[in-house]
Amino acid sequence: MTFHFESWLQQGSGRAENALEGALDSAQVVPQRLHEAMRYAAQGGGKRIRPLLVFAAGELGNSDPAMLNAAAAAIEMIHAYSLVHDDLPCMDDDDLRRGRPTVHKAFDEATALLVGDALQTKAFAVLAEAQGPAEMRLQMIGELAGASGSRGMAGGQAIDLESVGRKLDLTVLKQMHAMKTGALLTCAVRLGGIAAQLDSAKMTHLTQYSTALGLAFQVVDDVLDATADSQTLGKTAGKDAADDKPTYVTLMGLDYAQKQAKELQAEALASLACFGPEADALRALAKLVVERKN
Amino acid sequence: MTFHFESWLQQGSGRAENALEGALDSAQVVPQRLHEAMRYAAQGGGKRIRPLLVFAAGELGNSDPAMLNAAAAAIEMIHAYSLVHDDLPCMDDDDLRRGRPTVHKAFDEATALLVGDALQTKAFAVLAEAQGPAEMRLQMIGELAGASGSRGMAGGQAIDLESVGRKLDLTVLKQMHAMKTGALLTCAVRLGGIAAQLDSAKMTHLTQYSTALGLAFQVVDDVLDATADSQTLGKTAGKDAADDKPTYVTLMGLDYAQKQAKELQAEALASLACFGPEADALRALAKLVVERKN
Repeated sequence: MTFHFESWLQQGSGRAENALEGALDSAQVVPQRLHEAMRYAAQGGGKRIRPLLVFAAGELGNSDPAMLNAAAAAIEMIHAYSLVHDDLPCMDDDDLRRGRPTVHKAFDEATALLVGDALQTKAFAVLAEAQGPAEMRLQMIGELAGASGSRGMAGGQAIDLESVGRKLDLTVLKQMHAMKTGALLTCAVRLGGIAAQLDSAKMTHLTQYSTALGLAFQVVDDVLDATADSQTLGKTAGKDAADDKPTYVTLMGLDYAQKQAKELQAEALASLACFGPEADALRALAKLVVERKN
Repeated sequence: MTFHFESWLQQGSGRAENALEGALDSAQVVPQRLHEAMRYAAQGGGKRIRPLLVFAAGELGNSDPAMLNAAAAAIEMIHAYSLVHDDLPCMDDDDLRRGRPTVHKAFDEATALLVGDALQTKAFAVLAEAQGPAEMRLQMIGELAGASGSRGMAGGQAIDLESVGRKLDLTVLKQMHAMKTGALLTCAVRLGGIAAQLDSAKMTHLTQYSTALGLAFQVVDDVLDATADSQTLGKTAGKDAADDKPTYVTLMGLDYAQKQAKELQAEALASLACFGPEADALRALAKLVVERKN
């Protein structure tokens, strides 16, 4: 049977929205404004790449759909929290995200701070309260905390902050991106693999896939920031150069960055060689990440 | 045998410091500045009331010391993260905390934001990685997330924000404090009770104890803000009145607040009637919370 990525993608995106919708508190719950702002932050569209990676990796084994949904909602909440805090005036000071006002613009700064805080908390609550084996949920919580904390995403942010206006070499830039963006993308794939109860050899291949994918994702981000317009991007374009931030493009040039993205895509695909057609969704996602326009 | 609270307190405080020290990343770990700032935030003294409550409640049964240490470190990290974010300019805008510059003053705003974020993450990581039964760790993670998220501490903060300059009645004020401060104090006691594997009747008594204690804690905070000087307090005194914040004191007067604190203390002690001398540390802590000078 041929794999139809378009219909898989449509179904997966809908499933991600439903998982989030089911996990978020209603805007009727006190404090209403905070819950409304949390929904605004988490439900503002976005590509749902992380939930899609959870679902795709989950197809490599006999995963419990409820565990995949919990993992998808949890990791997307972590991603959403990080965007809300990154957009704050003391960080990137962005007014626009996915074509809409950022949370601190639509609400206020203090609320945006709390929205990020509470979305992070909720991510762990979702996994703690999911239906499924205790050991599996704990492993997922541990992976998610490791990927998003001071040695992962938040740590990458800290390195990013220190790098503004400084000369970074490619090694440090890669390390920063591996932590800032890569760790959570890898985590998404691994959460799916954990739900699928893969053996450690297969988990290693998955991690190789997602490491290459994560780096490709960031390289493409840098390329888009330099080449796309704000409307296509749904956020302010050209910010990296304006902020004097080191990126793949500013450091290595546009041609190199575009070539590098292609190479990383090939590396990601090669890591999936041990899997059969059950990995077709992961393969298609690697293509999507590199060839996206926003 | 008579219970010697002073030596219990000294031992418990040292144990709390050790548990935190063992759980925090070294300032040698990349990114160093972030880890240094996380340590600054978590190790700035403080009364360690929450870890002490974990230890005290843990004495009601045959608790695994390692689980109590993990719970103590985790809940104090959540508390520390909340202080760092509360002190930020967009929230309370405080320069002084426990007699030292707040994190955004000693480092910078962006770093303080990440410190709070990463301390929260670390709290869940500590419980996920602790040695102990999976079900127990999951239950603790669920309790901690519930107490600190949008229906607990962060939600109380949101209500607090909305209340500045507004008339609040006593019911809403109590609800706000129950979420903002009470939920995490109750959680501390319950984490100890979970480690002690108490039955549900005893857990209910513990929850009654800690609900009264939590409210008493906040009433005393309001009294101290109105009566103590900044040096004794280790933070800016008189801020509530200056910020036009509704408090027990501004709403009900100093006499009422002081009487209320005593009544809540009596209520907390009455809830422990079903326990013998094994609850003496909890009893002494109820006294300490109400009679503290800072």
